[in-house]
Amino acid sequence: MSIAPACPSPIQRHETVQMAHGAGGRLSQSLMQRVFMPHLSNAFLDMLDDQAKVELPAGKTAFTTDTYVVSPVFFPGGNIGELAVNGTVNDLAVGGARPLYLSAGFVLEEGLPLSELETIVSSMAEAARKAGVMIVTGDTKVVGRGQCDKLFINTSGIGIVREGTALSCRNLKTGDSIILSGSVGDHGMAIMTSREGLSFHSGIMSDCTALNAMIEAVLDAVPSVHAMRDPTRGGVAATLNELALSSAAGMEIHEGSIPVRADVRGACELLGIDPLHVANEGKLVLSVSPEHAQTVVGVMRAFECGRDAVIIGSVVADHPGTVVMRTAFGSRRIIDLPLGEQLPRIC
Amino acid sequence: MSIAPACPSPIQRHETVQMAHGAGGRLSQSLMQRVFMPHLSNAFLDMLDDQAKVELPAGKTAFTTDTYVVSPVFFPGGNIGELAVNGTVNDLAVGGARPLYLSAGFVLEEGLPLSELETIVSSMAEAARKAGVMIVTGDTKVVGRGQCDKLFINTSGIGIVREGTALSCRNLKTGDSIILSGSVGDHGMAIMTSREGLSFHSGIMSDCTALNAMIEAVLDAVPSVHAMRDPTRGGVAATLNELALSSAAGMEIHEGSIPVRADVRGACELLGIDPLHVANEGKLVLSVSPEHAQTVVGVMRAFECGRDAVIIGSVVADHPGTVVMRTAFGSRRIIDLPLGEQLPRIC
Repeated sequence: MSIAPACPSPIQRHETVQMAHGAGGRLSQSLMQRVFMPHLSNAFLDMLDDQAKVELPAGKTAFTTDTYVVSPVFFPGGNIGELAVNGTVNDLAVGGARPLYLSAGFVLEEGLPLSELETIVSSMAEAARKAGVMIVTGDTKVVGRGQCDKLFINTSGIGIVREGTALSCRNLKTGDSIILSGSVGDHGMAIMTSREGLSFHSGIMSDCTALNAMIEAVLDAVPSVHAMRDPTRGGVAATLNELALSSAAGMEIHEGSIPVRADVRGACELLGIDPLHVANEGKLVLSVSPEHAQTVVGVMRAFECGRDAVIIGSVVADHPGTVVMRTAFGSRRIIDLPLGEQLPRIC
Repeated sequence: MSIAPACPSPIQRHETVQMAHGAGGRLSQSLMQRVFMPHLSNAFLDMLDDQAKVELPAGKTAFTTDTYVVSPVFFPGGNIGELAVNGTVNDLAVGGARPLYLSAGFVLEEGLPLSELETIVSSMAEAARKAGVMIVTGDTKVVGRGQCDKLFINTSGIGIVREGTALSCRNLKTGDSIILSGSVGDHGMAIMTSREGLSFHSGIMSDCTALNAMIEAVLDAVPSVHAMRDPTRGGVAATLNELALSSAAGMEIHEGSIPVRADVRGACELLGIDPLHVANEGKLVLSVSPEHAQTVVGVMRAFECGRDAVIIGSVVADHPGTVVMRTAFGSRRIIDLPLGEQLPRIC
């Protein structure tokens, strides 16, 4: 549908989302014009058709989806909007794809302040710009008070898979070095410490960021990287287990090599949580032949988000499917897949 | 991640969604294996990677997204699962695209019976099979009791735009015939009458269905169709207004020609709602040169979902941007874009 030329009235502080904003009528148009379009306007979205039509470069297409339900929606180091962009960008990038286009589907709770929504939308636009992707199609639904918690955002993404990579979580090889891009647990602990009743003024910030530029540089330098994952829900522990299980490979990790910020470690101890089980939103785990490991670490360290990149262990022929940690004291313990959820609504 | 060979334990009647099902750990895997994979398994989804990698045929790619929050999730004639598949298939098809691949993002409320979820997932699989599309990537989040209402489903879709069509809501031409594929208001009134306190045993069923096969046949016969839309939220009134506004064209509609089922008309009168403002989920509105109108109607009538296809009016040079209804009594009234929402959470 076409809308009037953009001269939207400014958002007033007291204005909130109403049921009628989701009804497809005049107020839906007004929400588009006043909140979404000023930030997200581009040649595709401006068409306001039911679908965007894009030209994709040659190659296989990567397609991914994620719904973000993080609570609180504003947290130290970010908000649900930039998380929704970065998370989906990263899900494409770890598959060896260049992220190109995103969709954005909003579920808004009646009563959500429009000013909060605008801040979130503006963060999405900024994150998309930084990551080099465009939000080309969208949808907004409104549900009554108490029928969702503030807002949920789904982003789906499409990208083009690089030629010449064979990234797969089934592709680990014995002898591979396991590389981690930086400190673990920052995002999850930022959420935890910002939740009501648990805020102990820690200064912990989410690591929420887009990894695609760093991944592109790593694959330019070493196209033969065997597997990549971003360790989000379930933390590094879940990612290592998924890789080991999928490849039926053993893994040995050196506890002392895993970077954990002192404040994150402290918060984890206080809450009785293993930092390896805590979600990250701007970290990368990869598996590569040992002769390329130092090259990869070097490339990663040139990026802010890979500054603390380090080899944390290797793929071993023993105990296929099991991840074993060598502790600082020389003992060994199994890093298990977490059973359930210590930290709900982390992303 | 790889999961154990499929030999899932059957769902017990008392089992419900738990927070841990959304945590990325063992219970997340169990939910995949027991509820999702038995119905949705295919070569792409079985990879359980963070993204699907698909080969698209040559041509422009259409990309769309919609989040479904319909309440109740089971309604006469369908459920949220088939609605989520058909709605997104239709959003691609009305753009002249052949729908190919869908993503599915679930937000589940803690306590949702697993048996209900399984019925919904099974309906999605069936709807996807019927429409000829594959669900290739997905995501599941769980939120606490009272933090969403049962479940919301986002589906995004990609398809390939047909060559040789120029469908656009900005493409209406004076003299065009406006064609509607069948009766209006069925979906919205099925939802309304099934809601608590409003159930008057009407027998009204949702028209929820995929339109892509019919649209493909219409475009095979008449590639020059000027514009297509599926009149969902806001009903036929909103769709006609969007087309008229986007094309800066006038429209004249003949009230007597618009099919409305007697029970839908009765329910609308009881509730004081204009059936033209009520959502449909399996109807098509299109604009085509008058010399092709009968051909299009003929093609549509060969399909169950187009059995009652009819010319309802035409594009006129007068009153650009305004849709005028000629009533059965010869008087004229403007069909306005509804301001807000008489029927929340209809899709």
